Amino acid sequence: MPPANHTVDAAEVAALLERGRTLSTPVLRAAVDRLAHPMDTVAAYHFGWIDALGRPADGDGGKAVRPALALLSAEAAGAPPETGVPGAVAVELVHNFSLLHDDLMDGDEQRRHRDTVWKVHGPAQAILVGDALFALANELLLELGTVEAGRATRRLTVATRKLIDGQAQDISYEHRERVTVEECLEMEGNKTGALLACSASIGAVLGGADDRTADALEAYGHHLGLAFQAVDDLLGIWGDPESTGKQTWSDLRQRKKSLPVVAALAAGGPASERLGELLAADAKSQDLESFSEEEFATRAALIEEAGGRDWTADEARRQHAVAVGALDRVEMPSRVRDRLTALADFVVVRKR
Amino acid sequence: MPPANHTVDAAEVAALLERGRTLSTPVLRAAVDRLAHPMDTVAAYHFGWIDALGRPADGDGGKAVRPALALLSAEAAGAPPETGVPGAVAVELVHNFSLLHDDLMDGDEQRRHRDTVWKVHGPAQAILVGDALFALANELLLELGTVEAGRATRRLTVATRKLIDGQAQDISYEHRERVTVEECLEMEGNKTGALLACSASIGAVLGGADDRTADALEAYGHHLGLAFQAVDDLLGIWGDPESTGKQTWSDLRQRKKSLPVVAALAAGGPASERLGELLAADAKSQDLESFSEEEFATRAALIEEAGGRDWTADEARRQHAVAVGALDRVEMPSRVRDRLTALADFVVVRKR
Repeated sequence: MPPANHTVDAAEVAALLERGRTLSTPVLRAAVDRLAHPMDTVAAYHFGWIDALGRPADGDGGKAVRPALALLSAEAAGAPPETGVPGAVAVELVHNFSLLHDDLMDGDEQRRHRDTVWKVHGPAQAILVGDALFALANELLLELGTVEAGRATRRLTVATRKLIDGQAQDISYEHRERVTVEECLEMEGNKTGALLACSASIGAVLGGADDRTADALEAYGHHLGLAFQAVDDLLGIWGDPESTGKQTWSDLRQRKKSLPVVAALAAGGPASERLGELLAADAKSQDLESFSEEEFATRAALIEEAGGRDWTADEARRQHAVAVGALDRVEMPSRVRDRLTALADFVVVRKR
Repeated sequence: MPPANHTVDAAEVAALLERGRTLSTPVLRAAVDRLAHPMDTVAAYHFGWIDALGRPADGDGGKAVRPALALLSAEAAGAPPETGVPGAVAVELVHNFSLLHDDLMDGDEQRRHRDTVWKVHGPAQAILVGDALFALANELLLELGTVEAGRATRRLTVATRKLIDGQAQDISYEHRERVTVEECLEMEGNKTGALLACSASIGAVLGGADDRTADALEAYGHHLGLAFQAVDDLLGIWGDPESTGKQTWSDLRQRKKSLPVVAALAAGGPASERLGELLAADAKSQDLESFSEEEFATRAALIEEAGGRDWTADEARRQHAVAVGALDRVEMPSRVRDRLTALADFVVVRKR
């Protein structure tokens, strides 16, 4: 699913992600070191720096799209990438606060190929360390003591509230029989769009950008987030477990009303109706765990036949186009614009 | 246990607490109304504004010491009490964020004579609404958009991190056989002192006070918090369930290593040793639920005999004196000083 008229320079994107990691990780580790024991250890486990027995590990800390965006965002405002580092770290802290809490609320046992924190260290530590990372994010920004840092913290706080709204919607949708495509997009805008929007603007805000510039970069990040999530929803059903680190048919096992599902249900026609009947019956069953691979494969095939897979792939491309279009509203060095565009391209072609 | 050389003017304290409630509650309710459904309902239940079925209620919202302090704090800096209102509300939001999460982590089923949020609405809502209240606290302050609000948010963030550290220590101490008096005081300073310190200074910071004034008011609040917690620890063992809304011997049922317990264990002598043997045996038992009232009464009597009750009552008086003494470091209208003193007096003589 490559975006129309774009080829992705994989090496350039890899270098951008690597730069984000290289500049932000030492600051992130120093921030986590401020936590009282045993929260520092629990957080280090979550970030993949140590294993469950406390031995040093070289874990998968995630794709690091957010730090890469925060650094590019500073450059978009004419500041050096380093100006975006506290923003990159604050956004990563908020992102990981939400992962710790969401994994517990959702009962997810695996993340990044490893047991989740609540599985290893218990629910109380997952709550507590999540809280601590959230507080730490604000602390890191506010101790800069500048007007810009105050503005950045305010934007981050608004994004965090949306993130929480999105998780609340996600949970409530799991208990409902029908969710509209619009409701699903709103939830995903909150749950994924808001923090990517903040990542794409926080560096610029720290670099002294005006609200107009910050808002345009937010719009880029918001639509990039929706594209990102559409791809995530595709991977959640058809992704390769080897790449994603999740089970096969992961989102179907969790009854997630993700975009391919709600789009298929809204499409009408025989496959859509048959899917609706099956999912309605599933909703009454307590136990999807006992389902065979074939039963999930049947549902996935119906989603595809009803057009849910294609619609979601198109949606990823549409959001990608809107994101890249938003960049036209900001004056920035063309090299920075090219890099932001390359990152957007990467998001829609990734396999994990 | 009235503090030496002070009589408490009950009517004046009641008026101060009432003023804090009257000025802050409408702003608090408007803030909670910003939450997406069903988080608004869950929060309204937590604050006692509705019952478990959603019917309006006139619940017990707590003593409201923190809002009263925040308003006095503004006056201590020469500002009108209204200047402290966003601070009062932010501190209440953070306090209630911590209650929601702590009740879940600790498995506490009752608060203010009612079932806790996780009991009524489930663990996910307790986590989510707690997160939302924390974010809302920062949002309310930062949208003031002033330099003072940035400073106030930074102080609140530092206090919140200490609050989380204190809860982490509290949890880890429950699994340890011995906790020193110093460790217990450090935990209580984090868990209770930090947010009372912030309450007592946040109004002044919003009113433009310099760091010296804010720090002195923080010191007053910190020691007031330690006095408050010492009294809480006494009420947690010997409090009247009718007044406290908790079970008899509440802290002993929860194996809390509170001040009377650690002081009694540190005292030495026959009662102290016998208590140590009993608690060591209890620690190996999974099930204190089956204990009779007499078994808890025996432990409480040993704590008292070993001097833990008297030591804790003395500690409340000592911290009260240090708190009131810190007020001498700040120039403020004598009427405000008298009121801060009256509030400190109230904290050590309260029965709930």
